[in-house]
Amino acid sequence: MGKGTLYIVSAPSGAGKSSLISAMLENNPTYAMKVSVSHTTRGMRPGEQDGVHYHFVDKAEFESLIAQGAFLEYAEVFGNYYGTSRLWIEDTLEKGVDVFLDIDWQGARQIRTQMPQAKSLFILPPSNEELERRLTARGQDSDEVIAKRMAEAKSEISHYSEYDYVIVNDDFDTALMDFKAIIRAERLKQDKQAAKYHAMLSTLLAE
Amino acid sequence: MGKGTLYIVSAPSGAGKSSLISAMLENNPTYAMKVSVSHTTRGMRPGEQDGVHYHFVDKAEFESLIAQGAFLEYAEVFGNYYGTSRLWIEDTLEKGVDVFLDIDWQGARQIRTQMPQAKSLFILPPSNEELERRLTARGQDSDEVIAKRMAEAKSEISHYSEYDYVIVNDDFDTALMDFKAIIRAERLKQDKQAAKYHAMLSTLLAE
Repeated sequence: MGKGTLYIVSAPSGAGKSSLISAMLENNPTYAMKVSVSHTTRGMRPGEQDGVHYHFVDKAEFESLIAQGAFLEYAEVFGNYYGTSRLWIEDTLEKGVDVFLDIDWQGARQIRTQMPQAKSLFILPPSNEELERRLTARGQDSDEVIAKRMAEAKSEISHYSEYDYVIVNDDFDTALMDFKAIIRAERLKQDKQAAKYHAMLSTLLAE
Repeated sequence: MGKGTLYIVSAPSGAGKSSLISAMLENNPTYAMKVSVSHTTRGMRPGEQDGVHYHFVDKAEFESLIAQGAFLEYAEVFGNYYGTSRLWIEDTLEKGVDVFLDIDWQGARQIRTQMPQAKSLFILPPSNEELERRLTARGQDSDEVIAKRMAEAKSEISHYSEYDYVIVNDDFDTALMDFKAIIRAERLKQDKQAAKYHAMLSTLLAE
């Protein structure tokens, strides 16, 4: 069996990244795929589960993991650490399972230097108006927070050209089909197929 | 508008290459795609049409085209020339149309050196037994010719690892979906999307 592929997925808030990843996991019983769950030192919020939304650890444990080189990347945001477990990702890929890593452009850069074989996808909204409409429709944020998210979106989008693939999420179903096509095509790459069909190829080429 | 992609498609005789390419062209009104038609000096056979199956030219004209550097690759087989027009392919790609080039591993190598941005696909049969069954089912060839094709198949298959993608044509519909996923994913590559969504990206990133 061949190794899985690590997919770095970035997008501005409101582009539909989480919904696309969820839909991909729900609709694909054929392919083995999982989402990487980050470690964090921030407190658990209502509705969150340890090991599902994050692996919640305290600061001392996080710093010990840093010292062990356990993270592919980590960052400190407002006094809390967030990190991506190298061990879990490497083990999961080794089992032939694809891994999705939901991360921003800065994290993506760190991951690429550590795992150059990773494939990266950027999800774009079709327009700023639509992005603002989606952020407003959530009904969670004040105008001020939405204005801040729109500025952050522009900054995130400015890095789209660092990614292997770009999906425009105008129509959700089309974007999901795009996402699926990328995963399917990557599994058809010669090295993946050579591993998957090793026995068949030996028979085809036997004298 | 972005440029089209050149797809080199190779397979042993009986793997289903022509059927897959035909089905791809018939089922995809959305994407602009064409098959490259080779030039040849061999005589036209019953049922063949000039410009459809081949561009039929005489030997003097073919050699003049060679001298002009008009071919991306050419070969002489049993005293007849066969060649791939550089000009037509470059013009067609420039119009944003994808081009399929049905060619063997030797031609594929020549094309790759001339157009390194081309993507190459190799189509495998699921087994030698199934390949022989398909060749026999055509009812065109003697046992001797089929034995020769089986030996040629092994030689062609031995080059599968030189290709970007590998499709196993066991079930035709699955193989066609694989083929479509590759074309769709290649159109989602960052450089293609940047060209296609140039205006949208300018608006998203405007201050």
